[in-house]
Amino acid sequence: MSTELKGDERIDQLMQFGLDIIQSPSVFSFSLDAVLLGHFAKVPGHDRAEIVDLCSGNGAVALMLSGQTRSRIKAVEIQERLADMAGRSVEMNGLTEQIDIIHADVNEVHEYIKKDSIDIITCNPPYFTVSDSSRKNPNEHLAIARHELHLTVKELMKATSGLLKTKGKAYFVHRPERFFDILDAMREVNLAPKRIRFVYPKPDREANMLLIEGIKQGKEDGLKILPPLYVFDEEGNYFPEVRRMIYGNEQD
Amino acid sequence: MSTELKGDERIDQLMQFGLDIIQSPSVFSFSLDAVLLGHFAKVPGHDRAEIVDLCSGNGAVALMLSGQTRSRIKAVEIQERLADMAGRSVEMNGLTEQIDIIHADVNEVHEYIKKDSIDIITCNPPYFTVSDSSRKNPNEHLAIARHELHLTVKELMKATSGLLKTKGKAYFVHRPERFFDILDAMREVNLAPKRIRFVYPKPDREANMLLIEGIKQGKEDGLKILPPLYVFDEEGNYFPEVRRMIYGNEQD
Repeated sequence: MSTELKGDERIDQLMQFGLDIIQSPSVFSFSLDAVLLGHFAKVPGHDRAEIVDLCSGNGAVALMLSGQTRSRIKAVEIQERLADMAGRSVEMNGLTEQIDIIHADVNEVHEYIKKDSIDIITCNPPYFTVSDSSRKNPNEHLAIARHELHLTVKELMKATSGLLKTKGKAYFVHRPERFFDILDAMREVNLAPKRIRFVYPKPDREANMLLIEGIKQGKEDGLKILPPLYVFDEEGNYFPEVRRMIYGNEQD
Repeated sequence: MSTELKGDERIDQLMQFGLDIIQSPSVFSFSLDAVLLGHFAKVPGHDRAEIVDLCSGNGAVALMLSGQTRSRIKAVEIQERLADMAGRSVEMNGLTEQIDIIHADVNEVHEYIKKDSIDIITCNPPYFTVSDSSRKNPNEHLAIARHELHLTVKELMKATSGLLKTKGKAYFVHRPERFFDILDAMREVNLAPKRIRFVYPKPDREANMLLIEGIKQGKEDGLKILPPLYVFDEEGNYFPEVRRMIYGNEQD
């Protein structure tokens, strides 16, 4: 099968799932955050769930989920260039029957996907507020993926809660410094935070990522703070859990 | 020096600080929670700070803080029997010049301590709501210490914020299942959560305690999730950090 590559695109591997993915350093490359989210989300193996990945970028999370379920996955991405890359990756892996790429603004997602219809949503959203100029990227593609130029955390949670069925679950990866913004936005739309896992770059360092699960119209008791996840050990090697997420079990 | 012991009281040691403390299994014994709080709180070594320990029980946290600062410490306890134990422990250790035991309800603490006058507050409060009957203790002393019979987390945060100077700091130990109650109550009285440390009984288990620092009228950005604190290793031995908190460095 020949896949058309544009500009500086290259084909990388989602090793654990034996899938290929088109990446481009100047447009979008998925990062460890997507890998962690793809493993944090719980998807059923069967084919009867409705799954949506918002802010899908080049489709990394949607592709990873496809390795864990037979249910259909809709991947929503606002940037046409990225949605196009994701679409070609889906074709390249022969997954057009399972993954739909939808080129749309999450704020208008209800025009494409029915309200109250989704069982599971994942999202690796832009992390930084527009005012957080210290991290601004002059490259528009990267700026849209990283800063809340087109989607705030509040808008994201509203769209997510709107799509989910009652008791449907949403999974996000985000930054600890936005923790209160995330919690406030979730609770405002009745998305009860249920499980939180903090990610630490190394032992003895502060957390630099968090994974959070919310349940639509869930009760706000029984919050669980899961065991911490360390990325690198003191020697700079991946911790076994992370290594398995990236390379799969056969590398142990 | 002879110290009067009442009923089933015994004298235990706060090993790290070389202090003695009166305990009673039927009335109150301090637990690891107090030790963790005593180390999480940051107190200056000098004698010019105003420090208050609320819900002081038998005075364990106040005694531990006295080993780290020359500033005066006011310890507030609602139960007369416990305040009496704490007072005798203070005398026994020759600390009557540094620690005042105040027998008072935290809801009425402003009658004893001036508003907006305190630099640092610590508190190991009752953890369980009154409705959380599964954990209710028929022993009234223990029930008051564990359940919010006389002090809710909301009332605690109101009293704390009232006592603190602007930019004064408060340190609490609590339970993850009350996390949202704690955050809501803190933010409602302008006590900005700044540093959170989750405590895990063992690696690979969910957190069962949390330590949280708030700053009065602090900004709500820059929240830090500190490295996790494990209590026991897989063999059931204290992790070195916890062992040092309990026994001091000389035991390493």
